[in-house]
Formats: sequence, structure tokens, C-alpha cells
Amino acid sequence: MKSHIQQHLMSYKEKYKNRGRLLISCPDQPGIVSAVSTFLHNQGANIVESSQHSTNPEGGMFFIRFEFECEGLVEKESQMEEAFKPIADSFSMDWKFMYAYHLKKTAIFVSKELHCLLELLWAWESGDLMSEIAVVVSNHEDAREVVESFGIPFHYIPATKEIRQQAEAKQLQLLKDYDIDVIILARYMQILTPAFVSANPYRIINIHHSFLPAFIGAKPYERAYKRGVKLIGATSHYVTDDLDEGPIIEQDIERVNHRDDAEELKKKGRLIERTVLARAVKWHLEDRILVHENRTIVFN
Amino acid sequence: MKSHIQQHLMSYKEKYKNRGRLLISCPDQPGIVSAVSTFLHNQGANIVESSQHSTNPEGGMFFIRFEFECEGLVEKESQMEEAFKPIADSFSMDWKFMYAYHLKKTAIFVSKELHCLLELLWAWESGDLMSEIAVVVSNHEDAREVVESFGIPFHYIPATKEIRQQAEAKQLQLLKDYDIDVIILARYMQILTPAFVSANPYRIINIHHSFLPAFIGAKPYERAYKRGVKLIGATSHYVTDDLDEGPIIEQDIERVNHRDDAEELKKKGRLIERTVLARAVKWHLEDRILVHENRTIVFN
Amino acid sequence: MKSHIQQHLMSYKEKYKNRGRLLISCPDQPGIVSAVSTFLHNQGANIVESSQHSTNPEGGMFFIRFEFECEGLVEKESQMEEAFKPIADSFSMDWKFMYAYHLKKTAIFVSKELHCLLELLWAWESGDLMSEIAVVVSNHEDAREVVESFGIPFHYIPATKEIRQQAEAKQLQLLKDYDIDVIILARYMQILTPAFVSANPYRIINIHHSFLPAFIGAKPYERAYKRGVKLIGATSHYVTDDLDEGPIIEQDIERVNHRDDAEELKKKGRLIERTVLARAVKWHLEDRILVHENRTIVFN
Amino acid sequence: MKSHIQQHLMSYKEKYKNRGRLLISCPDQPGIVSAVSTFLHNQGANIVESSQHSTNPEGGMFFIRFEFECEGLVEKESQMEEAFKPIADSFSMDWKFMYAYHLKKTAIFVSKELHCLLELLWAWESGDLMSEIAVVVSNHEDAREVVESFGIPFHYIPATKEIRQQAEAKQLQLLKDYDIDVIILARYMQILTPAFVSANPYRIINIHHSFLPAFIGAKPYERAYKRGVKLIGATSHYVTDDLDEGPIIEQDIERVNHRDDAEELKKKGRLIERTVLARAVKWHLEDRILVHENRTIVFN
Repeated sequence: MKSHIQQHLMSYKEKYKNRGRLLISCPDQPGIVSAVSTFLHNQGANIVESSQHSTNPEGGMFFIRFEFECEGLVEKESQMEEAFKPIADSFSMDWKFMYAYHLKKTAIFVSKELHCLLELLWAWESGDLMSEIAVVVSNHEDAREVVESFGIPFHYIPATKEIRQQAEAKQLQLLKDYDIDVIILARYMQILTPAFVSANPYRIINIHHSFLPAFIGAKPYERAYKRGVKLIGATSHYVTDDLDEGPIIEQDIERVNHRDDAEELKKKGRLIERTVLARAVKWHLEDRILVHENRTIVFN
Repeated sequence: MKSHIQQHLMSYKEKYKNRGRLLISCPDQPGIVSAVSTFLHNQGANIVESSQHSTNPEGGMFFIRFEFECEGLVEKESQMEEAFKPIADSFSMDWKFMYAYHLKKTAIFVSKELHCLLELLWAWESGDLMSEIAVVVSNHEDAREVVESFGIPFHYIPATKEIRQQAEAKQLQLLKDYDIDVIILARYMQILTPAFVSANPYRIINIHHSFLPAFIGAKPYERAYKRGVKLIGATSHYVTDDLDEGPIIEQDIERVNHRDDAEELKKKGRLIERTVLARAVKWHLEDRILVHENRTIVFN
Repeated sequence: MKSHIQQHLMSYKEKYKNRGRLLISCPDQPGIVSAVSTFLHNQGANIVESSQHSTNPEGGMFFIRFEFECEGLVEKESQMEEAFKPIADSFSMDWKFMYAYHLKKTAIFVSKELHCLLELLWAWESGDLMSEIAVVVSNHEDAREVVESFGIPFHYIPATKEIRQQAEAKQLQLLKDYDIDVIILARYMQILTPAFVSANPYRIINIHHSFLPAFIGAKPYERAYKRGVKLIGATSHYVTDDLDEGPIIEQDIERVNHRDDAEELKKKGRLIERTVLARAVKWHLEDRILVHENRTIVFN
Repeated sequence: MKSHIQQHLMSYKEKYKNRGRLLISCPDQPGIVSAVSTFLHNQGANIVESSQHSTNPEGGMFFIRFEFECEGLVEKESQMEEAFKPIADSFSMDWKFMYAYHLKKTAIFVSKELHCLLELLWAWESGDLMSEIAVVVSNHEDAREVVESFGIPFHYIPATKEIRQQAEAKQLQLLKDYDIDVIILARYMQILTPAFVSANPYRIINIHHSFLPAFIGAKPYERAYKRGVKLIGATSHYVTDDLDEGPIIEQDIERVNHRDDAEELKKKGRLIERTVLARAVKWHLEDRILVHENRTIVFN
């Protein structure tokens, strides 16, 4: 890793050495905010950001994200989590504590189109993407030079329909070796098997080069051109077993016109793809996303 | 019609009493611009706006729109069109002369949701929509009061699947009686028969409340909510026999988030629907749209 | 008032008959969320939405907005506020309870351009603007017809630089007579005196037809044209004594190009003006806005 | 230069080896389009794109851009230009022929913030920016590594207020040595002298990190934060003697909110800065921009 990137990451970890996050989903009922905020206060934590969403105060679901400062947090982690269990149980919560100073370890998967990868590397270099990018995996050699110039290990793993299982076995081994928390498909043009996906629930983020659910599947720009749309889009979503059907994290569009052929749409689309993916990744790294009924709640 | 609207329309006709437009589609070949612009010059016309599009200089199609000023144009119309025929023939052109001072006669079809109708009426009242709105047709009575307050005839024609043919017969008669040039479906929630559509080629403009081709058909906001999209859209298009498959004129989107349920999406969508439709109608009235292979060329 | 609008407002009041909001600004310190949410819980309130903003966990300011459901709220109001005082005092809070079912009473001021007024009336008619529009005041007669067609009292009060004080005396009397909570300047082209403004702190919402701080003052579209900008904007803000310098609530822009002269910019600008103002008003009516150091915190 | 970039540029030159452009500004009068298009036709040129703008058909100015294909253009250049002179004179035209295959030579000036430079280098690497990037000049060493990795000469020229003249003397010599056609200030944080600017009329493109004319001058993000704007912007313009007052080529904005401090505005602003600059540069390289009365006409 380049030394100034290491510097960025170190500064972040130092700055947020007491910064924790708590994400909760549970059936709605009175008293949740009171119980949790009182718990945090008693633990010595000061809430610096909180966001809540309720689908319906009567019989609906309740979602909340707290971000808090707590002196000496790193030593308190397991005790705090232990102490929280009774509250969690009493409200039937799905919950997790996350700690800003434990940077998530990222693997980026890429094929031949490098613009999304480059955007992430740049954001990383600029100190806008707080993660340890541990490894880049590709079924082509195109990305090797730039990836290695950042001091990131690059693994070339050929992947086609025929050798998918062997390829995924190697990939899964790498994810284990590097202790990966999140996988970013930065225009990785291979389909993943259900086995691979279910091994990484809501930990694989994809960028699809259309405004989903329009143009699901292959060649979206060609089909967008053929249909004569006036806007093109990109969609970042968690990968699930249904192709391009996972929970949408972020979308954006760009205006096009009759002068733009499919080739030009591709060019114009690159900008949206990379910015949409970068935003989705950033929110994931900051633990801002909850998933419910195949939809995301993004507390941003 | 309210008197100040009449005033707007009269001023426009006076201001543009010498304003003509020429739209051409033909196979591309050298010399078209030269031939046509020289013709216009010889007719005493001064070109004030011209826009051109070529799909491919070799073997492709060529599209051009001229807007010109020509002293005493109203008396020259038929002579000019006659004189143009040899040029048109020599280049195998599809062509038409249009005259700004011949305001297009418009029929607006609406059901119970009035926001798109109201936007058009307002634009009309503000002098932003230069057309003679000759009649409003509806399968409900909801719009009557506001329509009649503008001095526009309102016709209530019940329409359901069962009585579609009788309803369309009445509608077609109205279009004939009022000598209608363009039909605007301003959230008219009935399907038109192929007979009705083919009687009005590229003269029916619809607004669909989704970002086509996403959510073709019924209940797009409900489906958008269910899918968890982060942007909703609206699409204005010419109506053809394939439902929601006609040439797209204009699209736009609005950002939404997890707090927006289907009802809220509908509310937010209204603004996009009405602005997208108003833009599409404006461009149509200004003869800015050509259609080729189910795609529009919009010279705006 | 038209009966179906009355219907909308009644339904809203019924639906939200137990809905309260609590807005707080205070110096940041640990324990605020815990204290307030526990208080609300003890009062029998269920928090359905909460948003928080801290400028800085150490020595900064803390802002929070709660929206809650509480059985029988209307009878509990004063008791609840009384009971909250000790907590408020202990944290040095600026605070207010608001009640969704007490609709705010609105006065709209307008001059000759009616598009912003019409947008508000429409939103009102559609059930998107939950307020009692009690009176419209104008220094021209242009709006009378449409305003009275909605059953809203219209008051013509001539206003020029010379007779400003007399005009404002009449206006202030009207605000008192109608018990007005919020004043919307929907393109009211008169400057208000410091006396008038200070009598209505953060209760006057203006729409300025530029992207502030660009083109402060008169004739922004003419100046935008002259400068050759590629985007035009509109800004809604609270009115303070400094012209166009009050806290900004919302802004938006629209793309323009070299073909648009000042007149065209005005036309294109109308759409942004009315949507930006409508959004700002909606947020104000929902008690989503706090002001700190001449900036707004908008919990939306 | 990297070999695959060289490949992109060679392919472009080959593909457009017969592609010319003609830009004209002159007083409006009848017959211009006819005269010029007939001239081009007689020269064997096929017009593939034409765009026209008239400020006013009576007594106004006329602007047109033609893009044409002409067999063997490279040999015909001077003869064609010579032959055009009589027509140009008869209409008092400002005019120039440009040739797509003569790639413009570019110098990029940069200081410590590299995001705009990187965006341009990327666009260049992807084949989206058809220019010969001949040299990068900086008053800091930060950019050297990445610039040299692209095989582009990097010149470090210290520049402060005190040594501005010496610095500019060196810079002007470099521009001469490299035969530079266009200078891009990619966040170059030094003011240029009138002498430098007037030596390069409409050949210096700057990116300013605000929505001009808001926040002219230094520290726009800090001032934007202080003012509490809800959108931030960036502006690309030609550099003239008046700071930040040159003709605007392109602008764009990004939504921000109360949670964004000045530092966050800077981060969010980077994306707009780089995309706005990249678009402006692209249009300049494609000869799409005319300047009239300090405003641009962008035929895109």
C-alpha cells in the first residue's frame, strides 16, 4: 500500500478510535429509543448521529442507526455487546455493533473495464474511502499494472462458464486468506453461483450499467439505444441469487439524446457507474445500510 | 377561452406571421443542405434556426429541421410547397412544411387525476403553450369545473373495456368536429384500440408514470416501491399499438428514499409527470420532433 | 374553502390526532437522547421518526427532532410541556412541542406573477400542503379571481416605497385578525421593513428567483443572461433584515443554454421557483426546520 | 506516452482523416447557410453535422458550426481556405476551418490538488479525450509521479506572487517549445498576469470551484458552508483578465445538506469539478465553442 494512503487510514483510525455504531431492526413498539439510548448513556457513550425509520407505528418494523463516541471503546467492545443482549432480546432485535476503527477489508473483482476500479482506487488515495483494499481479483490481466502500482496484491483467476466452480473455489480461498469483509464487483462480468453468493450475504456489492429494473441482464446500453431512452442509468445493489434483483443501494442517471449511439451511451454511462458504485461502497463501509424485504434503508 | 389567453395566442400569431418550419428525413447524401438552403433563400426565406442529424454519413439517414422567416409567408405556402417537390423527389425526402401561425388544435384526454391537465392549462394561461386547446374529453366528471372555467368545451364520455368501441366512436367524431391536430393523454387511464391509434399516427402523446421501459403497464409506483428503487421517473411518448412501447419524447426522474411508500411516490411523481408531459407537448407543438425506427429525434 | 379541501384537512387532522413533534437545540453533551426519549416514553408516546444533528460532539451544538404518537395527546399538551421544563432547563434547551393536528394558519403574499401562488393552491387542493390558507394579500388585483374561486379571502393592499408603512400596518392587522402562523412571499415584489420582519421571526418564507448568493437583488434573470450562466436557480429562505441573506431552506437549478434569452430564462425559472417554494413550505409546515447561525437544519 | 493511448489517438486520426469543421460568426442576413453549404458541396464535402444560432433575425448576429467529411481533405486545406475567403468577406465573417485529424496540443497546469488532472488523464487513457497532452506544468512536485507514469513530460516551475513574471516567462517558453494550442488550468492555484492571458485568447480553460458568479475568488467552499447553501457547484470558463469573469463554458451542481461541513463540501465538490472541466475541455477540443459578448455558444 502506498505510504500516504496508509497515512490516511491511520489518521482515520486515530480520529475515530472511540467511534462505534449500532444498527437495529425489530418489530416496532414503544420504548425502544429510550431503552437503547439510556443503555448507551450508561455505557459512557455520547450519541453523535442517530437516524430512525418506522414502516408503521402499529405492527410495523423499526430500524435505527446510532453513531456514538465512547472513551476507551476498543477495550469495552465485548462487554458492551454482552450487556446489550438482554435489551436486544426483550425487543426481539436484529442488531450489530460496528467499530469505525476496525476498517473493513475489501476485495475488488474486475474484468476488462477499469473505470469503476480506478474510481475506487482514487477515492481511496484521496482519503474518501476508508477501507483496507486487501486484494483485487480479475479474470483478465488488464488491471494488474495499475493495481500493483498501488501496492495491492493482484490475483488473476481465469473464469468462464465452464470453469466457474474451480474459479470460485480459488476466489473463496482468497477471501478467506485475506479475511475479506466486503466484495465489490467493479464491472466484473461473470455470474456468481448461488453457493458463492449465499456464503457472502449482503457483503457483495455490484454495479449494474442500467437503471434497474430496466434492462436487466446483458448489453443494457445497446438495448437502451434501441429503445430510444432519453436518460441512461446505473444501479448499485447487493448481490442475491436472482440476477440484478438484489436490494438497490443507489441509482443515478445521465441525460442522453438522439445523437448518442450505443457506443456513446457506454462512454457517458461510465461516469454514472463509477460515481454510483463509489457512493454505495462508502455507505456500506460506514454501516449506513439495512436491508428489509429486499429493499435497503440507507441512513445517509 | 379566457380573453387574456386569446390575447397571448393572437400576439404569438402576429409575431410569427412569417415563421415557417421545414422538417426533412431522407437517405444521407452530399448536397442536401446546399439544395434546401438555396431553395429557401431563393424563396426569400431567412433561416433563423437549423439543426441536423445524420446517423451515418455513408448509407445512413439524414434529418434536418429549418426554422425560417419569410415575408408574406401565408400567401406563399402552397406555391412554396409545390416548388419544393422536385427537390424533395430528387433526394427521396419525407418532408413537411409547418407554419407557426397555424396554431395546432389540441384535444386533452383525462381521467380522475388532474395534475397533468392543470399543468397544461397553466402553461397555456401563462403563454408558454401555443396551441388552441379546443376540447377536453374525460371518462369522469372531475375535470369539468376547471376546464369550463377556462372556457374550454368539456365532453364526458364514459369509457370502460366493455364500451370501448362506442366511446371511441364518439371521441373520433369529436376529433373531427373540432378538427384536432394533436391528442394529449394527460393521465387518461383507458387503453386505446389499434383502430383509434392508427387513425392518429404520431399525433397522440401520452405520459406514463414510470421511467420506461421499467414498469410498463399498470401500477408503476406500487411496483417501484416494491422493487425499492432510489429514483422514480416519468416518460412521455407517442402512442403506438404496443402499450408503452411508442417512441419516447422525454423522460425525467426524481430522487426518493426508504421513507417514501407507494403513496408518497405517487405524490412525488406528479411533479415529474406534469413537467415531462408539458415539455414533450411544447416540442411537438413547435414541430421539433421526428420519428425514425421507433426513436425520436428532438431538435431542441 | 372548497369542500373537498376541507375534507383533506379534516382527514389529516383525524389521522394525526395523536401526532406530536418535539424540536430541540442545545449545547451537546452526553445523555440528551436518553433523557428525552425516556421522558417521551414515560408520557406514553411512541417515537415514529427521529433525526439528530451534532456540529461537534465536543463543545458543539446538538439538534434533534422527534415525531411521536401519543394517545389522547390533545388533552395532554400543556401537562406534557410543563413536565418537560425541568429536563429542558437541565440541558439549556431551546425547545418547542408542535402538534400536527393544529394546522398552521398561512397568509400568502403575491404581486402580479401568479405561478408560485398557483402551485401552492394546487398542492393544497391535492392534499399535499396541510395548512389552513387563511388569506391572500396582494398589491395588485391579478390574483383575486383565482384566490376567491378557492374560497379564500383576498385583500388588495396597495404597496409602494412611499406608502410602505401604511401598507404594512394594514398587513399586520390582517395577520392578527386571521391569527397567522406563517407568511409566504410567493413572488411578492415589495421589500418588507425591519419592523415587519422582526415581528415575524423565521415565520416569513420567501422565494428568490436566483441561485443565492448569485444575483442578489433585482432582475436576476437579466443578470444571469448577461453573465452567460449555464444553469439558473431559485432559492427559498427565511426573511431576515438583510435582503436575500436569510437562512436558505431549499435551492434548485435548471439547465439553460445559449439559445435562452432573459425572457426564456424567466419562463424556465418559473418551474424551479414554484417547486422550490412548495418544498420549503411543506418542510416548514411539518416542523422540519431549525435555524442556527443563519443556516438551516432541515430534517427531511 | 503510453502505447495504447498512442493507439487511440492514431485510430481517431485515421477514422477522421477527412473530417473538417467550419465555425462562423457574422452579422445575420439572408443567404448565409445557402452560400456556405453550397461552397462546401462544391468542394466535395458532405455535411454530417450543422448547428446554427441567431440572436435576432433582424440586425442580430449569426453563428454556425459545420462538421463535414471531404475526401482527401488534408491536401485540400489551404486551397479550400483560400477559396472560402471571398464568401467570408462578402458576409463579413469571423471564421476558421479546423481539422479533426490535427489533434490539439494541450498543456495542463496543476498545483497540489490532483483530481482534475487525474480525470483528464483517465479520459485520455480511455480514448475519450482526443488531444496530444504534451506537457504538465506545476508549482508543486505532487503530480510528477503520476504524470511521468503516463509518459508525459512534467515541468516543475515554482510560482508565487513574488516571482510570477519569471515563472510565466518559463511557462510561455514551454508553451512555445511544445507548440501548445490549449492550456488547461486543472486547479492551478496561481493567478495569471494580463500579459500571459492576452497571449492566449480563449485558449486557457479554467475550473472554478463554485457556481459562478457566486463565490468568486478564494475559498468558495468555506464561504458556501458559511452561507448555508443547499447546492454547491463548479464552473469551467475561458480565462480573461477579469478574475473568474471569463465566458462560462459549463457548470454543474451537487446537492449538500446541513451535515456537510466545509471539508465535506470540498470532497463532494471534487466530483463536479472534474466532470465539469472534462466536459468543457472535450467541447473545446471538438471546436464546439464560439464566444460572443463574453458568453459562449456551445454547439453540443
